[in-house]
Amino acid sequence: MDEGEGFVKKGGDGEGASISKNKAKKDAKKAEKAERAAQRQQTRSAASSAGASESDETDPLSPNYGDIPLEDIQSKCITGRTWTDVRELSAEMKDKSVLIRGRVQTIRPMSKKIVFLVVRQNMSTVQCVLVISKDIISTQMVRFAASLSKESIVDVEGVISVPDPKDPIKSATQQVEIHVRKLYCVNRNMYNLPINIEDASRSETEFKEAEKSGKQLVRVGQDTSLNNRVIDLRTPANQGIFGVKSEFVNEFRRQLRLKKFVEIFTPKVIAGSSEGGAEVFKLDYKGQPACLAQSPQLHKQMTVCGGFSRVFEVGPVFRAENSYTHRHLCEFVGLDVEMEIMEHYYEVCDLVAELFVAIFNHVNENCREELEAINRQYPFEPLKYLLPDGNVLRLTYDQGIEMLKEAGVKTEPMGDLNTEAEKKLGKLVSDKYNTDFYILTRYPLNTRPFYTMPCHDNPDYSNSFDVFLRGEEIISGAQRIHDLKILTERAEKCGIDVKTISTYIDSFRHPAPLHGGFGAGLERVVMLFCGLNNIRKCSLFPRDPQRLTP
Amino acid sequence: MDEGEGFVKKGGDGEGASISKNKAKKDAKKAEKAERAAQRQQTRSAASSAGASESDETDPLSPNYGDIPLEDIQSKCITGRTWTDVRELSAEMKDKSVLIRGRVQTIRPMSKKIVFLVVRQNMSTVQCVLVISKDIISTQMVRFAASLSKESIVDVEGVISVPDPKDPIKSATQQVEIHVRKLYCVNRNMYNLPINIEDASRSETEFKEAEKSGKQLVRVGQDTSLNNRVIDLRTPANQGIFGVKSEFVNEFRRQLRLKKFVEIFTPKVIAGSSEGGAEVFKLDYKGQPACLAQSPQLHKQMTVCGGFSRVFEVGPVFRAENSYTHRHLCEFVGLDVEMEIMEHYYEVCDLVAELFVAIFNHVNENCREELEAINRQYPFEPLKYLLPDGNVLRLTYDQGIEMLKEAGVKTEPMGDLNTEAEKKLGKLVSDKYNTDFYILTRYPLNTRPFYTMPCHDNPDYSNSFDVFLRGEEIISGAQRIHDLKILTERAEKCGIDVKTISTYIDSFRHPAPLHGGFGAGLERVVMLFCGLNNIRKCSLFPRDPQRLTP
Repeated sequence: MDEGEGFVKKGGDGEGASISKNKAKKDAKKAEKAERAAQRQQTRSAASSAGASESDETDPLSPNYGDIPLEDIQSKCITGRTWTDVRELSAEMKDKSVLIRGRVQTIRPMSKKIVFLVVRQNMSTVQCVLVISKDIISTQMVRFAASLSKESIVDVEGVISVPDPKDPIKSATQQVEIHVRKLYCVNRNMYNLPINIEDASRSETEFKEAEKSGKQLVRVGQDTSLNNRVIDLRTPANQGIFGVKSEFVNEFRRQLRLKKFVEIFTPKVIAGSSEGGAEVFKLDYKGQPACLAQSPQLHKQMTVCGGFSRVFEVGPVFRAENSYTHRHLCEFVGLDVEMEIMEHYYEVCDLVAELFVAIFNHVNENCREELEAINRQYPFEPLKYLLPDGNVLRLTYDQGIEMLKEAGVKTEPMGDLNTEAEKKLGKLVSDKYNTDFYILTRYPLNTRPFYTMPCHDNPDYSNSFDVFLRGEEIISGAQRIHDLKILTERAEKCGIDVKTISTYIDSFRHPAPLHGGFGAGLERVVMLFCGLNNIRKCSLFPRDPQRLTP
Repeated sequence: MDEGEGFVKKGGDGEGASISKNKAKKDAKKAEKAERAAQRQQTRSAASSAGASESDETDPLSPNYGDIPLEDIQSKCITGRTWTDVRELSAEMKDKSVLIRGRVQTIRPMSKKIVFLVVRQNMSTVQCVLVISKDIISTQMVRFAASLSKESIVDVEGVISVPDPKDPIKSATQQVEIHVRKLYCVNRNMYNLPINIEDASRSETEFKEAEKSGKQLVRVGQDTSLNNRVIDLRTPANQGIFGVKSEFVNEFRRQLRLKKFVEIFTPKVIAGSSEGGAEVFKLDYKGQPACLAQSPQLHKQMTVCGGFSRVFEVGPVFRAENSYTHRHLCEFVGLDVEMEIMEHYYEVCDLVAELFVAIFNHVNENCREELEAINRQYPFEPLKYLLPDGNVLRLTYDQGIEMLKEAGVKTEPMGDLNTEAEKKLGKLVSDKYNTDFYILTRYPLNTRPFYTMPCHDNPDYSNSFDVFLRGEEIISGAQRIHDLKILTERAEKCGIDVKTISTYIDSFRHPAPLHGGFGAGLERVVMLFCGLNNIRKCSLFPRDPQRLTP
């Protein structure tokens, strides 16, 4: 047993000034050890409320376990040790010694001689075992392990052992066990948990099964989850959701960059309102009235007028709407595209179809673990997004209305589809075409924003489209009016005071190219892709009309 | 001459409903032609103020040129034609026929028989020639070309010819000429330009040379440029700047993703203020007091507490400061990283060094055209960012102060460096180490935000760093306090009402991992990388204390 091997080992590769100082301090080892012991004692008494038991300084194995004093983790030293990711732990590492850091998820003292810990890192968990053994694991060390509190952060060093495949480990994701040799607590949880990770991770199936067998399980409601989001985020499903979201948005960008789109950043604080709606957040900008952009619509079009032929933006958009629904947020991530078109807004539809199919394929192939984690808590059917011929279904608005009419659903003539009609149409389309993803084109002009180009053959219709996923709208797009005169007329007809958007209107003066584009909401797309029931699940810290914290 | 080959050709591959309709309309060709002629006439008379000359409907070549009526570009048809990017035009295409779309940058009628047009698309320009020639180019067609106004958008079809290499084309980027066969105006500029692209593109060198030869050139001031940003953005330097910015941010993400960072999106509307400062934009959030996040600092730390070990965010940050300087904006793009660390904040410094060197390398290698375009208008020295041993220079704050002291520069004891001292230190470092990029570590604690971890060996110092580029600060980073008690104490000591940031403080309760991170401003980094003199040049639509539009 080499004391120098523990966490407090000094030296390393002499990187930087403070490390050199540490080197010089080597001689002061003994004095430090005493100090550490004192601090450890202090920490322990502070932690006693969390059930930490006393260990014995006379235990010759004591350097192998204990709470790490704060001073030692204030960037005091660089030991050169290597930590292995829990997710990388596999049977191939049999008999190898590894060091991991993670949170204690469960503590199961089987007797005074044996303790099982499950340690979690991100989405992965591993079972760690301490068994009393001469010169390796002392009674005090087992007691120390048993005294740890859930969610405490620990460093575990030990040897990998592989269980009999006939008896797989059910309590952890990794099918290996760590036989612990050293165990240090980096930061001890000293407070009761308002929600338990296990409770917050349960699926409806578990609840139903428990009910059958007469058991009562704790159910964590959505508001409780969100109020305690920092703990709630640690569940496998949440780790999965935000992993998928990160991958989704990255593939969105990657595909667009392959098609020579330039990424842009437009201002979120603007004069006037971005699309003329009343439901904007207003603020005072150094004495000038301003608001938060409801979308990058106007500025992305202005950028295209500024000579950038194909642009996209990923950024927050703000809606002050009082929509307290499963699919509205007051702040969400907008995925916006604007591009010159040559002749037809179908060029934009083509892009949307290609782009989203590529993203869906990518996420399905590259996020298996994440999707599985989500599926375990929130079971969902994989998305059907292609027709048998490999294409994405396109229908006109009129065709959609016709399908609804045939099914006996009444809609307002030349009006927008309400949520119910959207859902119903999604069902009809799914039954008829076996797809959850389709594009509806040629909407009535009066259902679209003022900047939408009317159809050449019937001014009551427009060169516009919506895209649907599992019966809910995820994307709106269109050819835009590029003609200054018609744009001004349409704005006025839609009741917009053109003075409030004069810098936008002026952008069409010298003059604008033919262009079109679309916008989507990242959280909504991820929610529907994963078949989740609430958009709040896809926002780290959601903002709705009633929620401004955490 | 086949009339069916022109823009108004109908049919195509029959994609979608409206196309099929067009097919059915084929018979109505003649009627349509008459209608088109009438519309063209209309457009022309509207355009007459812009100097459009009349062409002759009796000209048998008339289908080869003219203004395209709006109706024809309201997504009326898909012709299946292919447009070539101007940037792709090269000598290898000699004698081939191409179709391009772009803006008319210059119009030079040499006589009644010859007109030269320079057509621009993004950063690239090409010279197009019309010479009267029987059955190909009529007098009227030349007149039509000469009548075009600058910045009008045109479709040019013609044959590629390659000039004698001894006599290169100076007026355009592409070293080929298009001998025009067809010329259509897609959208005509009908208004005087408030600024000329040529004027807005001039370098200081050009001004000096003109002065020498007694010429007076129009100088477009920064405010004029920004007031007319949609035109100003069309200059080659601006196309270059935003190309570099897009590439820069993408490489930032790509490198982090390679290192297993997850991309996150934290809320921009928050209760309280993100870092306790007074200079925040305040707003009313459904009756609750709220503000715009000055940085994602608190929420990115909370996300790490939520079990995401390594996260990054690219998003807007808002500063209500009254800093009217060359390097401050009220809204800019923040590049933020937060990560668990194992032992030392040098792990964050290591990441910063590796990451930014990778980005600088990438931009230098992949943005040659863009950097050249910037360099032509704003000449700059390439950035020196590596020591001879291939590492990034690191100094401690004390070492930096010592260098300044030796150079006779006085600084406030244990105080932050002001802009002047930063600049001076940058010069000293550049002279001594031949690098424009370095990391200054171990800042006095009192110069840093409350959440900064003090040094283990001296609580007057902190585990923090700044990063400098060409003598200006671009990045601040540190190990964060992960201990609830110390964090609360430090917040209180810094005069922050912890109640206003209670959800942040609470995140450390169950408990927080060791972590650190950093933040940078995208516009400032791009400005300094490209040696530009003002940060506004790196924001599409900049926001400063006086500017809220366009």
